[in-house]
Amino acid sequence: MSNRFEWPVRVYYEDTDTAGVVYYANYLKFMERARTEWLRSLGFEQDELMQRYGIVFAVRRVALDYLAPARFNDALVVDCRVTRAGRASIEFEQAVRREGESGALVSGRVKLACIDMARLRPAPIPEPVQEVIQGVL
Amino acid sequence: MSNRFEWPVRVYYEDTDTAGVVYYANYLKFMERARTEWLRSLGFEQDELMQRYGIVFAVRRVALDYLAPARFNDALVVDCRVTRAGRASIEFEQAVRREGESGALVSGRVKLACIDMARLRPAPIPEPVQEVIQGVL
Amino acid sequence: MSNRFEWPVRVYYEDTDTAGVVYYANYLKFMERARTEWLRSLGFEQDELMQRYGIVFAVRRVALDYLAPARFNDALVVDCRVTRAGRASIEFEQAVRREGESGALVSGRVKLACIDMARLRPAPIPEPVQEVIQGVL
Amino acid sequence: MSNRFEWPVRVYYEDTDTAGVVYYANYLKFMERARTEWLRSLGFEQDELMQRYGIVFAVRRVALDYLAPARFNDALVVDCRVTRAGRASIEFEQAVRREGESGALVSGRVKLACIDMARLRPAPIPEPVQEVIQGVL
Repeated sequence: MSNRFEWPVRVYYEDTDTAGVVYYANYLKFMERARTEWLRSLGFEQDELMQRYGIVFAVRRVALDYLAPARFNDALVVDCRVTRAGRASIEFEQAVRREGESGALVSGRVKLACIDMARLRPAPIPEPVQEVIQGVL
Repeated sequence: MSNRFEWPVRVYYEDTDTAGVVYYANYLKFMERARTEWLRSLGFEQDELMQRYGIVFAVRRVALDYLAPARFNDALVVDCRVTRAGRASIEFEQAVRREGESGALVSGRVKLACIDMARLRPAPIPEPVQEVIQGVL
Repeated sequence: MSNRFEWPVRVYYEDTDTAGVVYYANYLKFMERARTEWLRSLGFEQDELMQRYGIVFAVRRVALDYLAPARFNDALVVDCRVTRAGRASIEFEQAVRREGESGALVSGRVKLACIDMARLRPAPIPEPVQEVIQGVL
Repeated sequence: MSNRFEWPVRVYYEDTDTAGVVYYANYLKFMERARTEWLRSLGFEQDELMQRYGIVFAVRRVALDYLAPARFNDALVVDCRVTRAGRASIEFEQAVRREGESGALVSGRVKLACIDMARLRPAPIPEPVQEVIQGVL
């Protein structure tokens, strides 16, 4: 287990737009797939966290630079690195690049807040999750 | 109130793909917007139906012909016509065409089933909805 | 190489809607991913077909039955089987089911047409593609 | 003509996720619809700009705060205000709020770059567009 996580994403027609590139909102989908798989790699399934603890991780802030376009059929890699884990929030650095290349096409930061679904208010991250994340930081 | 309903849809970047046309799955979004607005035009808000009756309308069957492509920035019209209203289902004929043109770009049929959300089983359409729909058929 | 092809799809937040299930249009995305990967498994990349032959495969007809809902975090499998390959079109039977289960959640037929992008008209499927597809039928 | 622009957006099923709220990537779609309609309100159609000048506006940077969730069936308003117009880029402040309410659900900044589609490099914003934008600043 490590603080760096990579997740492959293939670009399909659904992801592109008429300018011939990946539509800008869709990188947020790719980045969330990587965060979901990172959490799964640590042993946590979000549907179980929802049922057991009544919490979800909601995106609180996004800041992204779009540096170069990805295109149809590209094999991409999404990087995911935790930079800070608080009591009720987690911050990530994320980047999207082509497989086998090092330069980011899109890079930025994403902040998640842990939310109590019943009260719709910030809630502490469940302790088992906190412990595992602290262990990989 | 009538059995024919039209809803305008503008094509944005989000709707297109790298082939320069509207992505095929997105017509299903356009058609659902029209069905939602048709129901609203009859006086029914789906979030209220959900809260009051515990039901949602789920798509049970879709059959679509893609005849010609819509493109970025096109001003479209989505037609929506009920062809049959049963006790627990509604069937529609729907078409998407360019504003001011009569030929359909996409046309087909959609069947909705009324679903009891708690039991996840077919349920009768709430009576007030049935009455209004029968009135416009 | 075979006429039956399976492609795994994980359900992420992006795929679901407020009714707690996969949004009906998104199964069309899943099915296209499987068709793309099937073509890739036969040795054909669609961006290369576009560049070399000036053609794309456009969806001409879709007929789907929605039998049961997929949910957030489900591990799905998309089946893809060619039922007919003509000179300028290909027909598929496709189904989406949960990994390890046999019953389809969604099943149906999809017809693709080969399109000359410059003239926007039906075009013969490139011969190398026809040959390989005939070989697996 | 003014520097402030508002565009109404209705939340449909397609926009929501299983947490019962609008999926975070979809606000970027709403914000782009508003920017597109703002440009149209100034007299510019993006497909015409593409054809006449060979340019597109590509998103170069996004920074968004997600303050409160929008839900299914909400009637939203997207605000769009130019804060800076350079020779080859435009910066916006944008917010999404419920119709009739003043507090933003999502707010942030978006920077567009004008791109020469043939060379895929930054290009000056066409003069007629620059003039009109300077006129409303």
